[in-house]
Amino acid sequence: MKRPIPIYAGRAAVACLLLLCSFQCLAQNVATDPLPSWKEGTPKKVILEFVTRVTTEGAKDFVPVAERIAVFDNDGTLWVEQPIYTQFAFAVDRVKTLAPKHPEWKTKEPFKSVLSGNMAGLKASGEKGVMELIMATHAGMTTDEFSKAVSEWIAKSRHPRFKRTYTECVYQPMLELLAFLRKNGFQTYVVSGGGVEFMRPWAESVYGIPPQQVIGSSIKTQFQLRDGKPVLMRLPAVDFINDGAGKPVGINRYIGRRPIAAFGNSDGDLQMLEWAANGDGARLMMIVHHTDAAREYAYDRQSTVGKLDKALDEASAKGWIVVDMKQDWNRIFPSER
Amino acid sequence: MKRPIPIYAGRAAVACLLLLCSFQCLAQNVATDPLPSWKEGTPKKVILEFVTRVTTEGAKDFVPVAERIAVFDNDGTLWVEQPIYTQFAFAVDRVKTLAPKHPEWKTKEPFKSVLSGNMAGLKASGEKGVMELIMATHAGMTTDEFSKAVSEWIAKSRHPRFKRTYTECVYQPMLELLAFLRKNGFQTYVVSGGGVEFMRPWAESVYGIPPQQVIGSSIKTQFQLRDGKPVLMRLPAVDFINDGAGKPVGINRYIGRRPIAAFGNSDGDLQMLEWAANGDGARLMMIVHHTDAAREYAYDRQSTVGKLDKALDEASAKGWIVVDMKQDWNRIFPSER
Repeated sequence: MKRPIPIYAGRAAVACLLLLCSFQCLAQNVATDPLPSWKEGTPKKVILEFVTRVTTEGAKDFVPVAERIAVFDNDGTLWVEQPIYTQFAFAVDRVKTLAPKHPEWKTKEPFKSVLSGNMAGLKASGEKGVMELIMATHAGMTTDEFSKAVSEWIAKSRHPRFKRTYTECVYQPMLELLAFLRKNGFQTYVVSGGGVEFMRPWAESVYGIPPQQVIGSSIKTQFQLRDGKPVLMRLPAVDFINDGAGKPVGINRYIGRRPIAAFGNSDGDLQMLEWAANGDGARLMMIVHHTDAAREYAYDRQSTVGKLDKALDEASAKGWIVVDMKQDWNRIFPSER
Repeated sequence: MKRPIPIYAGRAAVACLLLLCSFQCLAQNVATDPLPSWKEGTPKKVILEFVTRVTTEGAKDFVPVAERIAVFDNDGTLWVEQPIYTQFAFAVDRVKTLAPKHPEWKTKEPFKSVLSGNMAGLKASGEKGVMELIMATHAGMTTDEFSKAVSEWIAKSRHPRFKRTYTECVYQPMLELLAFLRKNGFQTYVVSGGGVEFMRPWAESVYGIPPQQVIGSSIKTQFQLRDGKPVLMRLPAVDFINDGAGKPVGINRYIGRRPIAAFGNSDGDLQMLEWAANGDGARLMMIVHHTDAAREYAYDRQSTVGKLDKALDEASAKGWIVVDMKQDWNRIFPSER
């Protein structure tokens, strides 16, 4: 005689148990995985192993907290840099904002091209034109005034493709990595070719990185008394270009200690990676490779923005980790849930 | 009939109790006074009140931890600057060390004067001579080599009057102040006219201030590959002078946030104090006045080293705290116990 009910009841109990177990495993996995947006694979494995090695007291590669310095390029490493650098979009918008006070711009390059939306004309003005654009839009005001202008712009402007604010075009896996490193006693720094005072107003709320841990290019400033009140005026003169071979110089200037981990995405990060790589002890060098045209962009050796050529070769030669965005990240932006 | 014994016993008991009580009071005082080398008086009172005001949650003047930035001049504020700046003594010693490799120095100023101990001759060579001296002794090597040279020199050299290492010529009350502020969530920064890479090798062990919180003057450095290894070469060219009106520029460059407390001792700190003073909310500006020729030095308006003239007037006009070393400090150096 069949005894269907007890059997079904037994099966149901087993199924319930299995279900409960898998929920628990899932919950445990979610709770303990510090990098949920990273797929299982070499980059994630290497990151987790590296952090364990340098934070395990008594281990050969242990690094004291004070020396756990990690540096991150910004454009293309922490946030989108295509189709143009965000700071360049800011400069273009500022020309439009400031144009009423500069009637001469209507006929003067590179402003004329910018105002008429003629990007080819702007390109033709070359490096000199771009520098003129930067000085006209980034200098001639106090540091406080500039900070306010950046904050207002970054709050309202939208990325042309993603239709979100630029600070929503940051990479979720990198946010997780920043938080994971800090949780393990690391100090995280931005080391960008972009303007230091363009990044500082929002880097703390977006990346959790305070102003003093943002390193970037700068123009000169001057202390002045204005109606008896001290101000710092931004002058139309380059102070420092924190790009390429300038990045180790900037790191030494601001931090005075060699990073043990460095993250970049372009040839502009090559010397920073070399500098970090050549210290003693365990090191982690990583390059974000933009391979995902569907979810973000795909570009490397031929790109005018964020060109990745020599650094890709050196990564291959030296065993640095190359993150394949398409393969290694299961989520690109914080808004994708 | 006299009852001497019980009376004596009673007196002894009372004496014991009083003694015990005073020991306890003493112990309690030592345990709870964060600034034992500061005598009771206005500066100590103002420091304690200020820290309470900015750290009391819910209070009008509460400042979040991230914004508790305190900046300290170095020469004459944290350590002795008389009879000459320590870094100048380092430069003079280095000329002697390097002389065998530079036979031409025997006849060339300012080196000739330095090598023959003719300080008047060195003085006569003026600012140009001093700059030549700095470049010859501070450039032409890698940052790692320079750091090593500084570390070796600072470990073995002695102050001419106190016959102790220079790092033992730091002010005990200021060490206590640094520790007290940090205990209350402050980030403490050195902001000095001295060379940033001259201070970084020892600032962490002496002041508890890590390299990235040392701001100073700098010469240019250049990224180079030497036998395939990246190095930063120190070039004989000024990068930045972090003195006077340069101090707010340096503070903005490195920190990107306005300090809420600033400590100096000379006119070179005036703009730094003004910059800190002109933020919103509670502020603490303090000047160390060298008034103790017996225990240290006494100098101000007429001194060529650490001249304090305009800043003393402004302190008086604006109510900044002036610390009278003789009156306000019961101990100058850590070794005085």
